[in-house]
Amino acid sequence: MAILLHDLCGADPERRFSPYCWRARMALLHKGLDHEALPWRFTDKAAIADAGTDKVPVLRDGEAVLSESWDILEYLERAHPDRPSLFGGEGGLALARFVEAWSNAVVLAGLAGLIVSDIPRWLDPADRDYFVRTREARFGRPLAAVTAGREQRVESFRRDLAPLRLALRGRPFLHGDAPGAGDYIAFGGFQWARCVSDLPILLRDDPLWDWRGRLLDSFDGTARRAPAEDPG
Amino acid sequence: MAILLHDLCGADPERRFSPYCWRARMALLHKGLDHEALPWRFTDKAAIADAGTDKVPVLRDGEAVLSESWDILEYLERAHPDRPSLFGGEGGLALARFVEAWSNAVVLAGLAGLIVSDIPRWLDPADRDYFVRTREARFGRPLAAVTAGREQRVESFRRDLAPLRLALRGRPFLHGDAPGAGDYIAFGGFQWARCVSDLPILLRDDPLWDWRGRLLDSFDGTARRAPAEDPG
Repeated sequence: MAILLHDLCGADPERRFSPYCWRARMALLHKGLDHEALPWRFTDKAAIADAGTDKVPVLRDGEAVLSESWDILEYLERAHPDRPSLFGGEGGLALARFVEAWSNAVVLAGLAGLIVSDIPRWLDPADRDYFVRTREARFGRPLAAVTAGREQRVESFRRDLAPLRLALRGRPFLHGDAPGAGDYIAFGGFQWARCVSDLPILLRDDPLWDWRGRLLDSFDGTARRAPAEDPG
Repeated sequence: MAILLHDLCGADPERRFSPYCWRARMALLHKGLDHEALPWRFTDKAAIADAGTDKVPVLRDGEAVLSESWDILEYLERAHPDRPSLFGGEGGLALARFVEAWSNAVVLAGLAGLIVSDIPRWLDPADRDYFVRTREARFGRPLAAVTAGREQRVESFRRDLAPLRLALRGRPFLHGDAPGAGDYIAFGGFQWARCVSDLPILLRDDPLWDWRGRLLDSFDGTARRAPAEDPG
């Protein structure tokens, strides 16, 4: 039986935008594992209740049910050791945690402040109510206020990406000649932004534009074909 | 013949404070390689001219002469594969580059703006002149102006360490149960600050205080015994 991934979508089931789901999706593609990415909406809590979570990604592989993108990546690596390695050994597994920490604290947190107000319009009515209510409670203010002034603030966000830019000097991917878990973890955030917002996050003369492009083109362009707003 | 490391020092040859030299030093200790860390001063250019550089660390291992801390770590891993691995495989080697990029762009650059004016007093007169002249040219202003307001700015620097703090949740080192190259690379900056400045960089209730303490205590407390100003 194919592996199943519960994958966040908008009103249009083809609009897949969760950064965490993209991490899992790219990992499945990297492993070359036959899988189906099932559309899931914020209010479909019942569909994943057996996983003990109310958030996606949730992965089902035979008897195994996993949640949390990190746990899914680690599971795929250990359960399918005959497939191409995601982490490149124990040191890669350990340091990918640092890439994840940076991606969450800098990329995802920074992007949230730039694009969160673009998300509701992609959601179906029930999800829209849920999303606006829960996110406004989290930020403590209207989503439009969270992203106010973003045209200026995006410049400071781009500067905060310096470590990624520096690490990619002289090589196409964080993992070297071919991408790996570290690339997919960092990429998830950029794909999230790209799929919901037309705010230009990366500029064309940024080496990160090219890095993202290489990931969009990987695996026959799966991530490139996803409905998106930012052309990059 | 023991491996030789040209290691930056102050007027007191025991005061070793270069963040890049500490990366190399910790890597040598990790590998358990017999070595001597020779005191070197900024103006001792002749002693390392054959390495094609004017900066330390410079490592001499038999016929091999290496400069740049990254190249030294990579060399030690490949030349001494029978010793404990620094990187934990190719994935670890690749992603340690990201830890290095973050450590340079965030930790070292941030610390420079907090502590660079504390360095001259530790240097002998020739080095002091050289250091002040070259660093003031680099920053475009007096060193005292670079670090002005640091008591306030250190708080923002501590917040910028969030990715390191997050990555260390639930494990003692970036590499897991035991330290590796990623830990030493990030540690170098904190040891630099500690060895020249009494500005409290890490607070006692910060998990990074404990992480740094574990590295200070590694290898029979070699880094802990180095003459230092910050008690942490």
